[in-house]
Amino acid sequence: MARATADATAAGLAGLVVAPGPDLVHLCGYQPTAITERLTALVLTAGREPALIVPKLERPDAEKAPGAPALRLVDWTDGEDPYAAAVPLLEPAGRYGVSDNTWAMHLLGFQAALAGTRWTSLSETLPMLRAVKDGDELERLAAAGGAADSAYRGILEVRFAGRRETDVAADLSALLIQYGHSQVDFTVVGSGPNGANPHHEAGDRVIEPGDTVVLDFGGLKDGYGSDTTRTVHVGADVPDEVRKVHDVVRRAQQTAFEAVRPGVSCQEIDRIARRVITEAGYGEYFIHRTGHGIGITTHEPPYLVEGEERPLVPGMCFSIEPGIYLPGRFGVRIEDIVTVTENGGRRLNNTPHELGIVA
Amino acid sequence: MARATADATAAGLAGLVVAPGPDLVHLCGYQPTAITERLTALVLTAGREPALIVPKLERPDAEKAPGAPALRLVDWTDGEDPYAAAVPLLEPAGRYGVSDNTWAMHLLGFQAALAGTRWTSLSETLPMLRAVKDGDELERLAAAGGAADSAYRGILEVRFAGRRETDVAADLSALLIQYGHSQVDFTVVGSGPNGANPHHEAGDRVIEPGDTVVLDFGGLKDGYGSDTTRTVHVGADVPDEVRKVHDVVRRAQQTAFEAVRPGVSCQEIDRIARRVITEAGYGEYFIHRTGHGIGITTHEPPYLVEGEERPLVPGMCFSIEPGIYLPGRFGVRIEDIVTVTENGGRRLNNTPHELGIVA
Repeated sequence: MARATADATAAGLAGLVVAPGPDLVHLCGYQPTAITERLTALVLTAGREPALIVPKLERPDAEKAPGAPALRLVDWTDGEDPYAAAVPLLEPAGRYGVSDNTWAMHLLGFQAALAGTRWTSLSETLPMLRAVKDGDELERLAAAGGAADSAYRGILEVRFAGRRETDVAADLSALLIQYGHSQVDFTVVGSGPNGANPHHEAGDRVIEPGDTVVLDFGGLKDGYGSDTTRTVHVGADVPDEVRKVHDVVRRAQQTAFEAVRPGVSCQEIDRIARRVITEAGYGEYFIHRTGHGIGITTHEPPYLVEGEERPLVPGMCFSIEPGIYLPGRFGVRIEDIVTVTENGGRRLNNTPHELGIVA
Repeated sequence: MARATADATAAGLAGLVVAPGPDLVHLCGYQPTAITERLTALVLTAGREPALIVPKLERPDAEKAPGAPALRLVDWTDGEDPYAAAVPLLEPAGRYGVSDNTWAMHLLGFQAALAGTRWTSLSETLPMLRAVKDGDELERLAAAGGAADSAYRGILEVRFAGRRETDVAADLSALLIQYGHSQVDFTVVGSGPNGANPHHEAGDRVIEPGDTVVLDFGGLKDGYGSDTTRTVHVGADVPDEVRKVHDVVRRAQQTAFEAVRPGVSCQEIDRIARRVITEAGYGEYFIHRTGHGIGITTHEPPYLVEGEERPLVPGMCFSIEPGIYLPGRFGVRIEDIVTVTENGGRRLNNTPHELGIVA
């Protein structure tokens, strides 16, 4: 909390307002049993004790949070105006950073109670609040990546042809749990034309011999995330175009990975992956950014996207996941989690990139 | 969507902006696979076709939503400014309602892109958007309440003494599923002193003979919510004070229920329950509002709370759940879901209110 407050001051902010969600977990370890319309918010301002605004009936829970000893708890009761309770904590007026996923109704409540105060989202002002991981965090992310590797090796052994995507997705889910995940966030099984929709999850389609299948899976192990994508083919008789597209994506992933080192901008990694795909003639079919950060969530800053000029810093962890999506036909994506080291990058999951052949 | 737009106009709004969540499900049936930092928002303005802003890679999912035929899809690609894409949809400038759980980062994005536009939360301006249920919805809520009744009858048969709260909670969860719930939202088992924390869920405490235990459980069945609380005692040897407190809460619940009819204000129901408890000398131990609405979520407007002056309307559904919490000792709460009829109220769950005796 002290470091976040110092970072906020350095970014020209009077303070931070953090609602329940991963930022709150990161800063003080508190997670209410449910996120509701009742205001809970951590207020960090320079020179003052951190304060946690909580509904009175959730106070006993908040008192048990790991960070509670360092917090002043400020409670409010149903029927009171919680934003009024917050006013003394947000003086003097200034520019405050607010956590991205704070509910709009709460931001509007703060804005109405504090006319002179300006607001900016944390992803705008302090996007890297949770981006740089320490040694213990890196170890956990590597362990989650290792478990995802094991799950991928396991899925290569199961039958694909004649089964529904949802059946294979259930197998993936069971494998992630078997290898130590406490929570499965997604198990994408995009077969044939479904693979060309990068956000397809898994549906009723029965997988056929000759299908190309995108497998994108991950979740949380010991509080930290995994996220891996590999593309497989049902049967060894792989059409030339599938091979060609897969090789392009593989080169894009590898080239982008090799460019990772401290000081390179996030958008540069996106550009490098995109250039490989564009030069191969598939630029219009790479319809998403190259990657996103990972940590206590499977989806967070830094984003490897055009316009993100911030530099890579040792300890950052993110996906590199270029893809090519040919509408109505098939898709290919390859994704690894990568961390920035002092002089390059290191993969946190490590199964081969070759097109997997399944039965 | 047409009715919501008309309601918005009647409330003096230029339109509505609705992010993923229950309001979006209610209005157009669309639920993205995950709620992320990527902007998805429904824009409703008078005289224009409803528009859904979606990330390009989620467009195929959005096209499958039940409401999609009535929607114009406006997509944006990673790297583009999604708020700029929204500007033409939010003209002319005016006051717009924004769904409560829209992320603050998106509201700030809209505010920056549209300097002349003012914003208000839906719970502030159109709180009753989903509050009045139609016949089909009432039937589903009653079915969910009936399943919760069956779960309560089931839990009276299990052993409490010598088992952990979490064990009884797991039994409650299994019973809700057994009786048709697809999702369990909460299974509070607050034994002895834990019952005095109204937001305690279930912990490692081993339940003892002589404990008073608060059981508060619910979830979704067929898309609609249940939420019931009963208080039980371990063994038939019930201390006088437990009986007395339980009787007070029971009278408070019954008196408030009998006051339900169209035209009575929400806060009046809260006042009536509170008066019974205050007159019995326990007013300071009733530390939450009397109730909350229920529908496609287990927690929504209307709120039965001091300051909520809006009147009850036939078809509204909400909990009436007074409680008394004696710190360090025990708690008692009784909760039913009630719907407003043409001339009174009707309970949607129906097990007896008497103090249950368990082994």
